[in-house]
Amino acid sequence: MTDKTRPLLLTGASGNLGRALTKALGEAGWVLRLTDIAPFPDTVPEGSTFTKADLNDGVTILRLAEGCQAILHFGGISTEHPFETVLGPNYRGLYHVYEAARREGARVLFASSNHAIGFHERPSGNAERLDATCEFRPDTFYGLSKAFGELMGRLYWDKHGVENLNLRIGSSFPEPVDRRMLSTWLSYADLARLVEKFVAAPRVGHAVVWGASDNADTYWGADHRDRIGWQPQDSSEPWREKVGDKVSGDPVTERYQGGGYTADGYTRKVPSPKDAFSLD
Amino acid sequence: MTDKTRPLLLTGASGNLGRALTKALGEAGWVLRLTDIAPFPDTVPEGSTFTKADLNDGVTILRLAEGCQAILHFGGISTEHPFETVLGPNYRGLYHVYEAARREGARVLFASSNHAIGFHERPSGNAERLDATCEFRPDTFYGLSKAFGELMGRLYWDKHGVENLNLRIGSSFPEPVDRRMLSTWLSYADLARLVEKFVAAPRVGHAVVWGASDNADTYWGADHRDRIGWQPQDSSEPWREKVGDKVSGDPVTERYQGGGYTADGYTRKVPSPKDAFSLD
Amino acid sequence: MTDKTRPLLLTGASGNLGRALTKALGEAGWVLRLTDIAPFPDTVPEGSTFTKADLNDGVTILRLAEGCQAILHFGGISTEHPFETVLGPNYRGLYHVYEAARREGARVLFASSNHAIGFHERPSGNAERLDATCEFRPDTFYGLSKAFGELMGRLYWDKHGVENLNLRIGSSFPEPVDRRMLSTWLSYADLARLVEKFVAAPRVGHAVVWGASDNADTYWGADHRDRIGWQPQDSSEPWREKVGDKVSGDPVTERYQGGGYTADGYTRKVPSPKDAFSLD
Amino acid sequence: MTDKTRPLLLTGASGNLGRALTKALGEAGWVLRLTDIAPFPDTVPEGSTFTKADLNDGVTILRLAEGCQAILHFGGISTEHPFETVLGPNYRGLYHVYEAARREGARVLFASSNHAIGFHERPSGNAERLDATCEFRPDTFYGLSKAFGELMGRLYWDKHGVENLNLRIGSSFPEPVDRRMLSTWLSYADLARLVEKFVAAPRVGHAVVWGASDNADTYWGADHRDRIGWQPQDSSEPWREKVGDKVSGDPVTERYQGGGYTADGYTRKVPSPKDAFSLD
Amino acid sequence: MTDKTRPLLLTGASGNLGRALTKALGEAGWVLRLTDIAPFPDTVPEGSTFTKADLNDGVTILRLAEGCQAILHFGGISTEHPFETVLGPNYRGLYHVYEAARREGARVLFASSNHAIGFHERPSGNAERLDATCEFRPDTFYGLSKAFGELMGRLYWDKHGVENLNLRIGSSFPEPVDRRMLSTWLSYADLARLVEKFVAAPRVGHAVVWGASDNADTYWGADHRDRIGWQPQDSSEPWREKVGDKVSGDPVTERYQGGGYTADGYTRKVPSPKDAFSLD
Amino acid sequence: MTDKTRPLLLTGASGNLGRALTKALGEAGWVLRLTDIAPFPDTVPEGSTFTKADLNDGVTILRLAEGCQAILHFGGISTEHPFETVLGPNYRGLYHVYEAARREGARVLFASSNHAIGFHERPSGNAERLDATCEFRPDTFYGLSKAFGELMGRLYWDKHGVENLNLRIGSSFPEPVDRRMLSTWLSYADLARLVEKFVAAPRVGHAVVWGASDNADTYWGADHRDRIGWQPQDSSEPWREKVGDKVSGDPVTERYQGGGYTADGYTRKVPSPKDAFSLD
Repeated sequence: MTDKTRPLLLTGASGNLGRALTKALGEAGWVLRLTDIAPFPDTVPEGSTFTKADLNDGVTILRLAEGCQAILHFGGISTEHPFETVLGPNYRGLYHVYEAARREGARVLFASSNHAIGFHERPSGNAERLDATCEFRPDTFYGLSKAFGELMGRLYWDKHGVENLNLRIGSSFPEPVDRRMLSTWLSYADLARLVEKFVAAPRVGHAVVWGASDNADTYWGADHRDRIGWQPQDSSEPWREKVGDKVSGDPVTERYQGGGYTADGYTRKVPSPKDAFSLD
Repeated sequence: MTDKTRPLLLTGASGNLGRALTKALGEAGWVLRLTDIAPFPDTVPEGSTFTKADLNDGVTILRLAEGCQAILHFGGISTEHPFETVLGPNYRGLYHVYEAARREGARVLFASSNHAIGFHERPSGNAERLDATCEFRPDTFYGLSKAFGELMGRLYWDKHGVENLNLRIGSSFPEPVDRRMLSTWLSYADLARLVEKFVAAPRVGHAVVWGASDNADTYWGADHRDRIGWQPQDSSEPWREKVGDKVSGDPVTERYQGGGYTADGYTRKVPSPKDAFSLD
Repeated sequence: MTDKTRPLLLTGASGNLGRALTKALGEAGWVLRLTDIAPFPDTVPEGSTFTKADLNDGVTILRLAEGCQAILHFGGISTEHPFETVLGPNYRGLYHVYEAARREGARVLFASSNHAIGFHERPSGNAERLDATCEFRPDTFYGLSKAFGELMGRLYWDKHGVENLNLRIGSSFPEPVDRRMLSTWLSYADLARLVEKFVAAPRVGHAVVWGASDNADTYWGADHRDRIGWQPQDSSEPWREKVGDKVSGDPVTERYQGGGYTADGYTRKVPSPKDAFSLD
Repeated sequence: MTDKTRPLLLTGASGNLGRALTKALGEAGWVLRLTDIAPFPDTVPEGSTFTKADLNDGVTILRLAEGCQAILHFGGISTEHPFETVLGPNYRGLYHVYEAARREGARVLFASSNHAIGFHERPSGNAERLDATCEFRPDTFYGLSKAFGELMGRLYWDKHGVENLNLRIGSSFPEPVDRRMLSTWLSYADLARLVEKFVAAPRVGHAVVWGASDNADTYWGADHRDRIGWQPQDSSEPWREKVGDKVSGDPVTERYQGGGYTADGYTRKVPSPKDAFSLD
Repeated sequence: MTDKTRPLLLTGASGNLGRALTKALGEAGWVLRLTDIAPFPDTVPEGSTFTKADLNDGVTILRLAEGCQAILHFGGISTEHPFETVLGPNYRGLYHVYEAARREGARVLFASSNHAIGFHERPSGNAERLDATCEFRPDTFYGLSKAFGELMGRLYWDKHGVENLNLRIGSSFPEPVDRRMLSTWLSYADLARLVEKFVAAPRVGHAVVWGASDNADTYWGADHRDRIGWQPQDSSEPWREKVGDKVSGDPVTERYQGGGYTADGYTRKVPSPKDAFSLD
Repeated sequence: MTDKTRPLLLTGASGNLGRALTKALGEAGWVLRLTDIAPFPDTVPEGSTFTKADLNDGVTILRLAEGCQAILHFGGISTEHPFETVLGPNYRGLYHVYEAARREGARVLFASSNHAIGFHERPSGNAERLDATCEFRPDTFYGLSKAFGELMGRLYWDKHGVENLNLRIGSSFPEPVDRRMLSTWLSYADLARLVEKFVAAPRVGHAVVWGASDNADTYWGADHRDRIGWQPQDSSEPWREKVGDKVSGDPVTERYQGGGYTADGYTRKVPSPKDAFSLD
């Protein structure tokens, strides 16, 4: 049985997902070590602690992880930014997280992103959904850093047996707000349930899981969710009417899974003539 | 027809492969822009130039690439080192190379490595050889940086149409010196021929090519070499006797394609019981 | 005719002058690329974009400038600060701006300052006014960085044909607030008109223009304003009474054009005995 | 009379000019504080000291200057390099040198360069020679840093009364080796004599002196050498035959005073049509 | 008699103690140079100045100290933080402060802390109180940086005759808020009186003074307060009832003088068996 | 009994003492992890490894220490240098070493120095020798960093039970070369014997030991050598005649234990009038 007194290290605690998880896991009785480069804006749950720290400061990250059974890595840059801005937190930071996990024999839940594979086309109709073993096709510097983070997990599993689950989050917000999110939305509650399942699972290995709720529409198919026994319970369906059917009208945005991220700075010739992609 | 007067930017010019390429391409009449953080130890070919520069200095890298038709990226850290040492040249440096290529409409030949996929097992007997579309399984921080570099190429092709060939070099030395190299050896001459084919090819897209000569033994199968019309002409066979049949005796080293790199710091339980890998 | 759809890159967009220009140019129908290290506090004009960026990040600055016809460089440290504080934004940043302009064939409007020449004496009576070709006599680390910026423009014009206008801004505020500003005031409207004239001018070369409105009092004479066909239309005269006739009483402040900046930290012997300056 | 026991701080002591000056001044009985980022390769003169230090380390530079009557600033980057390479030593370093001089009431001899004005045209025939009060026209990042250094001296004289002489060195080598150096050569002996005159002069103010020997050909005219009573005694004439009459044949190199530095990376249209320069 | 017009440099001016001292010393007629990395939130006293500066910027710190008779060093990190966070301000910063003092012939009041000696046990009953010459026993990275700062003062006194007083502040707040503070509290008024005595004292040497008011309970005995003629006048006694008698219950916290700081991250075996400490 | 197969991490392996220890400990059968920022110039003993690493790279230092039973910390700057040069290796580096030791439950032998207490006077005649519990009186920035290192050990012992021995090395060279070294010399053989005793000792606690051989003359008295059962066996006496009786003649050098280090940059009034020190 899971021992809730062995702490979980939660990075990025002061962000939206970090705060939601802190609330949910705190109420569920977990002991949390919270950390972020920004102050924690809420009340720290009884028995948990918050330490302000920079993901670039590896020795401190290693120390924060001492005695933890798992690291929930939600820290770092979480939207598109200049590469130079991403480099410290999302590359050096990942290394620090995995070194910490290796030292502790802890497992890692990495908040990866659909933007690590955003240049896969959206499926049409009943076409097959994308398997989690698909090729990486990052759509931004942000997405590239997430692909890198998954590979760091691959290396630490192969070489050191550090178990890790890479959650390719679609869109995790209080509710879906546009049409694409009807496919990609992940509810906070489903996320929190996944985290608890992840910590409790007997074996994880190097796993990849699509981070979306049980939506009627979806881009994504097979993954490793069975390893932890997670099934999402929420759905974007109740918001369908509210969201409406407006789409961007941009052909790149609408063609690829990463949506607007793929179109941001896109300079390749517009993907209409089929042969432009024959070398993919 | 290829215009040999449009320069090729060669990074890492002062390294072993850089020097070999400088000699071969210089003699073949190409105009080279050579750069390295270390001084160039040989005579710069007539019509070519050498500029000492740090891959971390992006604005300078972009300037060096002006007017080039291709970037041959052999610079950066080329063996295993602490992550912090690798970060600047192999991550920030890759970004600078691809920004330069995008600006120039140049293509990139990236000196990737078998260590980006080193944790795939060596094939036994007539088992199928590894396809270039295989999953990344880096075996070191060095290998991880190479996987990252390939994904940077993936992003710049998908988003900006920057063509790139990722050459997963096995072992490129004057001659093979151990038994593993009978499989992985890439002769300098085959490398130089590949570079010329790469520059001259009409279309490259995002290509991956195994960097080995026409050896009798090999780990590797299908790749994109046809896109550039390259076939290796040399073979490790003449060195077989000289190399002898001594192997390391280390079960990790001998099991995986990355050889000694996979065993360096390996702390996972030794891979004998089959089920230890059931979650791979 | 000027093509208003080819973007203008405006650095320092979140500062006072940057915000005033964004408003004026946006209303005039220009497409703006806005950037600053601080968030933009106003609404971004329709069709324009804002990107948070650090002038120290050269590759990002170069990318922001892509396709721009001009760079309006109002970014960097804009008052006196320790030299170390000024070094990154005002020196490295200038280099990035000019490299960007060279790459794009864009011209540069550089927000220089009267403090680049602040140690020239104020003219008395009908004495000749200072010509823009006068010697640099910076009065602060800030002013020195502005002189440097003008020389960077000189270099890029001489070597690369990058056209640039160096606007030696006197005091650009909503209204003049002290007696010195009756001479040095530059209205926001005159500034905005100058920018539009600058972009539209057929040839600029390396130009220097005094940045003051059509004030009754002035320190400054001939410059290159005719090249762009600009004449200021506002005047400080309506504020003369409101401003009053209080002066600082400090002999250094009142003697030199740079005003209080010249007296800030002044340790040379007070400039009364004429011969103290015989070696100027 | 000059007190030779009050030390002179010599930066860049391990460079060619630094070593030549150390020898000459040591033999002349001056007490020297030598410093450089590179080890000093010669014997330190009796009574003098050498300290390895980085010009970026301001507190150390200030300490080295304590009690010195003059700073002979020959340190920093002394040929063309990427701007980023130049920034620390030649910008931050200059600030440290002048802060040190201000603290000590010491004067500064700054090893400036003809490359600070290299884009002035060479005079033809009996045309007037260039006056030291001419406009700065730097020809490289190196030359720009030298113009900056002179302006730093201008600021510290105007604001703090720090006396400084800016020696625009032409070509200071053991002997002239090409035709341009027949005009620009400065002998080590003339340089050493100038330094002694500089230290001994009663008043210097902010002075600019052309750093060339008494050559038959010259680009340069009036300057402030009379303030220190220096006249060069050597001439390039004896080397005329040895040097020969070969010229580069490059129109930019031959047109401008800075020679090959002006042509290095030159991308402006070649200066034949007169009107291309009408906006200079 | 003390000359109140020779300025006092106060670092950390924007902190709680800095603001309290600014108020008290300003009202007492001292001329203050205030500095901090954060803006000063109050009105700067008439005749005083505030300069925003980073303790890492040594040349600026040295300049701020010019002409000052004393440096009141209250700047830097003032609670427990990761070592990396403490390193710049509390180590490099201390060096800058002492170099400044040496240059000016100024004396230094260093805001040291009881946490430099926090691992001394609290005295029981009438046991002897701790002498200021006791061994350093820092209880945190913060406390270690304070011990370092005292030793920097030791070095500058021994080698350069820079006088300094190291005030080992207990708990300086508007009022005591817990039981430990009944022993360690230092009132703002006692602190301000000490500062004035310190500046006025004829000789200080290298002094150490316990920074506590005249409390009924105390941990501390002999020190050098007589050198400056200071006696605290306030006492924590009036707050005894309000504070109550609640203690932490943590054996480490209650055993050592540093209180909660000693228990923060404590991993040594709990100090009950006497022999665990036999090697102290 | 001591297990020689549990590795010893030796930092500074490429320095003089590091090389001597590598040789001696290698021959004695210890397994060594050698590290230095400079390449190791000798043959690495069979079974040992060398890794090039920077003491500033904490995560790497922590990794190198994994599984080690002790850290022999001889790395860092080992003579006087500017403070800025010392800061990284000797402050940040010390933190990394102690964090590593805490993680491993390893003990630390710290190569401290007599310069941590160099401003104690030399004993005359039969006066009492200095006890290891004496006050720190560092004589240089180097010596100050050593005092800091000892206090870091104090903190880690008090808070985490990390055992450490601080060896205040006098002068450890192949042989004594001046008169002062007759008192301070520590033979390489005595050093190597001490290291072995240290590793084998059942308990160390926080110990301080004078690092000198069994010399006829000595400055130093009681220390903690009994805890490890070490007695030096060599003596400087055989070199007495060869060394001669020349002394520096400098009163500061000859008065204090630190010798020439105390006189380096000394600016306090020469210590003849007794009362100048009355405030010590």
